[in-house]
Amino acid sequence: MTVKQYDLIEFSAGDAPLAAEFFLGDERICPECFLKGEGEYAVRFMPHRPGEWRYRIGEREGSFVCVPDESVHGRVQAKGTHFCYEDGTPFYPFGTTCYAWTSQEDELIEETLATLKTAPFNKLRMCIFPKSMPYNQNEPPYFPFEKDETGEWDMQRPDFRYWDRLDRCLSALREMNIEADIILFHPYDRWGFSALGMEKNLQYLRYAVARLSAYRNVWWSLANEYEMVSAISMEGWDTIGRFIAKKDAFHHLIGIHDWVNPFPRKEWLTHASIQSGEVRLVAAWKREYGIPVVIDEFGYEGDIPFSWGNLSAFEFMDRAWSIAAVGGYVTHGETFHREDEVLWWAKGGKLYGKAPERFAYLRSIIEEVGALEPLKGQAIDPNGTGFMALLAKIAEGFSDRSKLMLEMSSAEFFGRNEGHRVYYFGRQCMRFFEAELPEEGEYRVEVIDIREMTRRTAFEAARGKVRIELPAKEGMALLVTRLKGEAL
Amino acid sequence: MTVKQYDLIEFSAGDAPLAAEFFLGDERICPECFLKGEGEYAVRFMPHRPGEWRYRIGEREGSFVCVPDESVHGRVQAKGTHFCYEDGTPFYPFGTTCYAWTSQEDELIEETLATLKTAPFNKLRMCIFPKSMPYNQNEPPYFPFEKDETGEWDMQRPDFRYWDRLDRCLSALREMNIEADIILFHPYDRWGFSALGMEKNLQYLRYAVARLSAYRNVWWSLANEYEMVSAISMEGWDTIGRFIAKKDAFHHLIGIHDWVNPFPRKEWLTHASIQSGEVRLVAAWKREYGIPVVIDEFGYEGDIPFSWGNLSAFEFMDRAWSIAAVGGYVTHGETFHREDEVLWWAKGGKLYGKAPERFAYLRSIIEEVGALEPLKGQAIDPNGTGFMALLAKIAEGFSDRSKLMLEMSSAEFFGRNEGHRVYYFGRQCMRFFEAELPEEGEYRVEVIDIREMTRRTAFEAARGKVRIELPAKEGMALLVTRLKGEAL
Repeated sequence: MTVKQYDLIEFSAGDAPLAAEFFLGDERICPECFLKGEGEYAVRFMPHRPGEWRYRIGEREGSFVCVPDESVHGRVQAKGTHFCYEDGTPFYPFGTTCYAWTSQEDELIEETLATLKTAPFNKLRMCIFPKSMPYNQNEPPYFPFEKDETGEWDMQRPDFRYWDRLDRCLSALREMNIEADIILFHPYDRWGFSALGMEKNLQYLRYAVARLSAYRNVWWSLANEYEMVSAISMEGWDTIGRFIAKKDAFHHLIGIHDWVNPFPRKEWLTHASIQSGEVRLVAAWKREYGIPVVIDEFGYEGDIPFSWGNLSAFEFMDRAWSIAAVGGYVTHGETFHREDEVLWWAKGGKLYGKAPERFAYLRSIIEEVGALEPLKGQAIDPNGTGFMALLAKIAEGFSDRSKLMLEMSSAEFFGRNEGHRVYYFGRQCMRFFEAELPEEGEYRVEVIDIREMTRRTAFEAARGKVRIELPAKEGMALLVTRLKGEAL
Repeated sequence: MTVKQYDLIEFSAGDAPLAAEFFLGDERICPECFLKGEGEYAVRFMPHRPGEWRYRIGEREGSFVCVPDESVHGRVQAKGTHFCYEDGTPFYPFGTTCYAWTSQEDELIEETLATLKTAPFNKLRMCIFPKSMPYNQNEPPYFPFEKDETGEWDMQRPDFRYWDRLDRCLSALREMNIEADIILFHPYDRWGFSALGMEKNLQYLRYAVARLSAYRNVWWSLANEYEMVSAISMEGWDTIGRFIAKKDAFHHLIGIHDWVNPFPRKEWLTHASIQSGEVRLVAAWKREYGIPVVIDEFGYEGDIPFSWGNLSAFEFMDRAWSIAAVGGYVTHGETFHREDEVLWWAKGGKLYGKAPERFAYLRSIIEEVGALEPLKGQAIDPNGTGFMALLAKIAEGFSDRSKLMLEMSSAEFFGRNEGHRVYYFGRQCMRFFEAELPEEGEYRVEVIDIREMTRRTAFEAARGKVRIELPAKEGMALLVTRLKGEAL
């Protein structure tokens, strides 16, 4: 028997949950069994190294051969404030959001998959539990669990119809190289899943982790808007985070998405998953957290009457560029009102906006440029160079609130790495900008219009101080590329 | 001798600074003498009540008759979080900014006055000291003071050429009903005026107050960006504020404009003068201060390479509407790059932007509607009505920083008074909005496009819950007017 590297292999465990172990060299991985069907247990494994893996499931022993597959890069991991696959290939998340797509009818699920096939997204935020909210009044075809005799959810009785289709969804995403950012809890609930109590929470998580963690493309998102899940305390979230980190034999990424109060740094937290249109704080969050910062909800392109769901394509992309330019990561969502209530953000279906094409363009730029870190002190200071230092000194006596205001009011959307700089000017309508490049070397300077998705070369090979003429309109960026000479 | 009510009347005091007193009934007003010309002292008075005023200047006594003038409304005063003239007529400041216009050549000063004649502004932010900054490299024709033998500024030696032209400027503004928001100190200085030391500061202020306070249209602004005037401490500003409040016999408004850290509330502070593009905090500032909040610098329409000076007309007006809708007040500025370096914000001259016309439109709406207070809880809550209360409870445990983030992320640009509501939707592109009007009565609902400056009636006489169709674009507002029934 052979299995491709990073693929999922499943073994039957019969009618009882047996202990399972998988070995290669010194390595030993112990995923848990789970109830796959009525009276039928299984265990799943993902071989991350080529070679002959041996296993023991209960008393049964065996082996299989894992064969390398260079087209596949493995799980995504955090590396500093960025991500890469486990083979080292960089991963730049450009996600989207279809919270309740696995709780819709099959036909709509197929339509969503067809849309994703040609869309520019490599990550998908999705809930296990169904969603209750305006535009989400329909009952799901299946719930993840069945109820007991008293009418309470029974986490020992998974509804296999739900989990089987979730398997199909995750496999389909995996084939499209889309990471499944699986949201485990959320507050938009009329069925009781947000207030199960910790015992049932952990039963549910144990099941989900055992069943889903052998998909290489799984990320765990403890919550959407954790603060709003009022039945779970801060300590409760920490319990959940530690539980998953311990139970997940495959060590997937773990995030917890906030509503307004970013979750404090914990050992199990691999990346920050933030809800905020406050793009001016992304550089500060990167600095404070020291892990990747994904702005998983900065507002959606759309036209519904909620402030988070009615951004113009340009406002949406302005925020995305502002985040990406300083080395943060972005997640898309779309909420155009429809009488049939099939809005992409919740149910999937089709995309109608102008943002996805421009999101793809941004993705192509970041993939060309690579991982960025904030570049400070590049804005032209009308007061001369000594002044900013003086101001920083003045600000030492400020309240936390004034310090935050200062951070925001002096934010710049400029990023760098050794070979590139990106200057994003946002809503500033400049006639010209003066960039300070290294005095030696050659650096190409291009002007990008994020709305029109055009780029033109301003200087083929500049150095030192250069003045770049700009069209005095919103949504302009500069891309500087090192051709030779010192790092940027 | 007769003088019109609220006009300035000047008396010579001869060659020495004499004590002066003006009486009417119980009232006694004692302005100080000042050096008007070489060896020539004068005292100025503004009679604010009709009748026969008696005076004593040194040993000399006399009287004059003040005659009423109903076309003039007197000084502007703070009243709650709004302003009115002393005859009770409301004053809604729609100011502009020409920091250094009195330090330019006469021809340019005349051009500025000609522009102001047809512009929509009723307040002008202007410095006494000249300005040093990009686009402000020219030397002023005159400084306010002369230097002594050691080369230090001598506040006992005013340059009468400067003050005489300042008199002409203030008179001209007064004739146009433009309030002169006189900035006493600022950091953009290459001559030493920002670091005179407190003794000279107070000598200068004594002179300025004695000479200028009889203009009914004077406001005192202690600073532009007080934090950046590093030679004056917080205690120093308080000393200055108390000094002016005590010396000014005519009790003009006193503000102090900040850079990022709004000045703490003081007894002498009549209104908050804030520099911030953070329009989402205006309602909070109003609540905290309890005095009028003027956002005296929220960014300028223009195209220069500084972030505060390159807003599109729409971004500028979006901020202005966001501020005005919750009952804050706004100040204009314009910074289009010009090779001759005559930019309105500093030197005056001509206006080139698209904002002034739209600023005039906003002014006309506010003058129609009257003073507004923030209207909370009107945004459509996708979670139902109980949810916001729950959230407020959750937020009690937040850090100051998270509370601030929450304040900003939940900001609404909606305002009300008894007869009107204004809903401004900013960059939200809504297809519809559901307003909750009183169940009884009749209320007209109009849809305003702030960019096109159009208004159309959506409902001639609505009541209760009404759904207003909107064009799903940025810059839309609703104006609700009570026709009959209970207050809005």
